[in-house]
Amino acid sequence: VRESELLKHIYGRSADLRGEFPRVVVGPGDDCAVVDAAGPLLLKVDQLVEGRHFRADMPLDRIAHKAVARAVSDIAAMGGRPLAALAGATLPHDYPHADALFDAMAGAARRLHAPLVGGDITALGDGQPGPLALSISVIGTPHAARGPVLRSTAQIGDGVYVTGEVGGSFDAATGLGHHCTFEPRVEAAAALCDLLGPRLHAMIDVSDGVGIDAGRIAAASGRRLVLDASTFPLRVGVPGLDWRRACGDGEDYELLFTAAGEVPAMIAGVRVTRIGVVEAGAGCVARVEGREVDIGSRGWDH
Amino acid sequence: VRESELLKHIYGRSADLRGEFPRVVVGPGDDCAVVDAAGPLLLKVDQLVEGRHFRADMPLDRIAHKAVARAVSDIAAMGGRPLAALAGATLPHDYPHADALFDAMAGAARRLHAPLVGGDITALGDGQPGPLALSISVIGTPHAARGPVLRSTAQIGDGVYVTGEVGGSFDAATGLGHHCTFEPRVEAAAALCDLLGPRLHAMIDVSDGVGIDAGRIAAASGRRLVLDASTFPLRVGVPGLDWRRACGDGEDYELLFTAAGEVPAMIAGVRVTRIGVVEAGAGCVARVEGREVDIGSRGWDH
Repeated sequence: VRESELLKHIYGRSADLRGEFPRVVVGPGDDCAVVDAAGPLLLKVDQLVEGRHFRADMPLDRIAHKAVARAVSDIAAMGGRPLAALAGATLPHDYPHADALFDAMAGAARRLHAPLVGGDITALGDGQPGPLALSISVIGTPHAARGPVLRSTAQIGDGVYVTGEVGGSFDAATGLGHHCTFEPRVEAAAALCDLLGPRLHAMIDVSDGVGIDAGRIAAASGRRLVLDASTFPLRVGVPGLDWRRACGDGEDYELLFTAAGEVPAMIAGVRVTRIGVVEAGAGCVARVEGREVDIGSRGWDH
Repeated sequence: VRESELLKHIYGRSADLRGEFPRVVVGPGDDCAVVDAAGPLLLKVDQLVEGRHFRADMPLDRIAHKAVARAVSDIAAMGGRPLAALAGATLPHDYPHADALFDAMAGAARRLHAPLVGGDITALGDGQPGPLALSISVIGTPHAARGPVLRSTAQIGDGVYVTGEVGGSFDAATGLGHHCTFEPRVEAAAALCDLLGPRLHAMIDVSDGVGIDAGRIAAASGRRLVLDASTFPLRVGVPGLDWRRACGDGEDYELLFTAAGEVPAMIAGVRVTRIGVVEAGAGCVARVEGREVDIGSRGWDH
C-alpha cells in the first residue's frame, strides 16, 4: 500500500462533496478540512478493530458501515445530527483492499450524512504484525431547540424507554447480524427532541447492553433505574433469546432514554417500549417475578 | 488493561476542563463531547503508530506530545487555533502504561490548547499482536479576518518562505530530536495572518520534507515553485546536514508559505527565511549552482 496513492484516490473521489454537503467548505486534501458551523457542536471518536469489533472475514461494506454508524449513533444519542467525519486507518502490511475499504467508508459516511472530510493512513511495515484498525471521529450539531441530551439529567418519576429491539445483535455462526447492519437512530432522536422537548430528560445509545447502559444513566444522574424485564422488546427471530441475554448482549445501537409524561409507542417509524422507571437511589435493577436483579454491570465492555 | 477503569480515570482527570476551556460545554463521559463554536471550523486527524512514527523506547511524554502536536501543526498550517481534541488508542495486550500515557496526552493537549474532550480505547486481546497506535482528531477555528489559508492559492510572483530550521529532525542514535519536541507554529501562523492578511496566499506545514511539501503547494495551486537551495535554514548542530538531506528529512513541522510583498525576518519570535519564488508552470525545483533539481517528490511519505 502506497499511502500517497491511496490518498490521491480518496481526494479524487471527494471532489464533489461540496455540492451534496454545502457545509463542507474544504474537503480532503489540504492540511485540514473546513466545515461551517454555528453554535455548539458534538464530537465523538469510535474505533473499530479487527478481532475485537469484527471478524477478519466480515465484508468490507459491513466493516465500513459499522465503523461510521457507531460514531453516528452516539451523535443520535445526544439528540443531534452528524455534520462531517474524519477517518484514521492502520492497515496490515500489504493490505490488498485499501481502495475498496476507503470507498466503502466514504459511501457509508455519505449515506449516514457524515461526509468524510479528512483522513490519515498508516500502513504497517513488513514484519510488523497488527490488526486492521479504524478510528472514526464524527462532529455533529445538537437539536436546535432541545440542545444536547445528556446522560446525567434523568429525573425521579421518569419513564425509561428503549427504541426498536434488543439482544441477539451478533450471530456467532456467521459473525454478522444487527451489529453490522443497524441504522443509527438519528431521525428517531430528532423526532423525540421535537415532540418531547424539555420532557426528554436523559438519553444514551445501547452499545454495551441495556443493563450496563441503563446503569450509566443511573450513575451519571445520581438516580436508580428500575426496569421490568418482562417488557424488554426482544429481537424477533433469535433462538433462545431471553431478557438476561438481551440485557448483556450489547451492540443494539438503540436509544435508551428517560422522559416525563406521555411518550408515543412509535416515533419516526420506530417502535418505542416503556421498560422501567426512574426512582431515588443508585444503581440499576431488573424486576423479575417479584425479585430484583442487579443488572447495572451486566453487559459487554466494548 | 480494563478499558472501563481507564475511562473512569480519564473522566475524573477531566472534571475541571470547563474552567480552563470555557468553550468545552461537556467534556469526556457522555455519548459525545459538546464544544461551542461559531462559523467555520478546521478538522484534522493524525495517527501515531509505534515502529512507524516513534520507537517503542521513546518516553511517554514525547509520544504524547508528538501525537497531539502533529495534528495541531496542521491547524496552524491553515492559520488557525485549536479548540479541542479527541484521542483514539489501540493498546497492545496487557500494556502497562495506559494510565500514564493518557495522563501525558491530556497534559500535552492542555499545553497545546487542544483539550481532550473524548476518547476511545481498544485493548488488543491475548495472542493478538499489534503496535501501540494513537489517533488524534483536532478541531480548530480559522483566523477570524484572514479565514483558512489553503495550499491551493499560491500566486505567480509570491516569495516562498519557511519558519525556523529544517532537516535533521530525527536523531538516528537515540530516536529522539526535534520530531518529538517541536512546538506547533500556532502563534507564528496567527501573527502571519494578522500582519499579512490577504497577502498571505498559501501555507502548509513541513511534515514530509521541504521538497515534497513545497511540491504539494505547487500541485494544488497549479504553479511552479523554484527554491534556492543555498538559502535553506539548516538546523544548527546536526553533523553532515546539507540542503539535499534537509529537503527530504521531513518532520520539521515548520510553516512553509507563499506571500506577496514584504515579509518580516522574524514573526512571533520565530525566524522567517525566504527560500524561493512562485512562477508559472508546474512542479517544484531547487536551483543549485546554476542547475535545477526536481525536488517535488524528495521527501519521506509518512
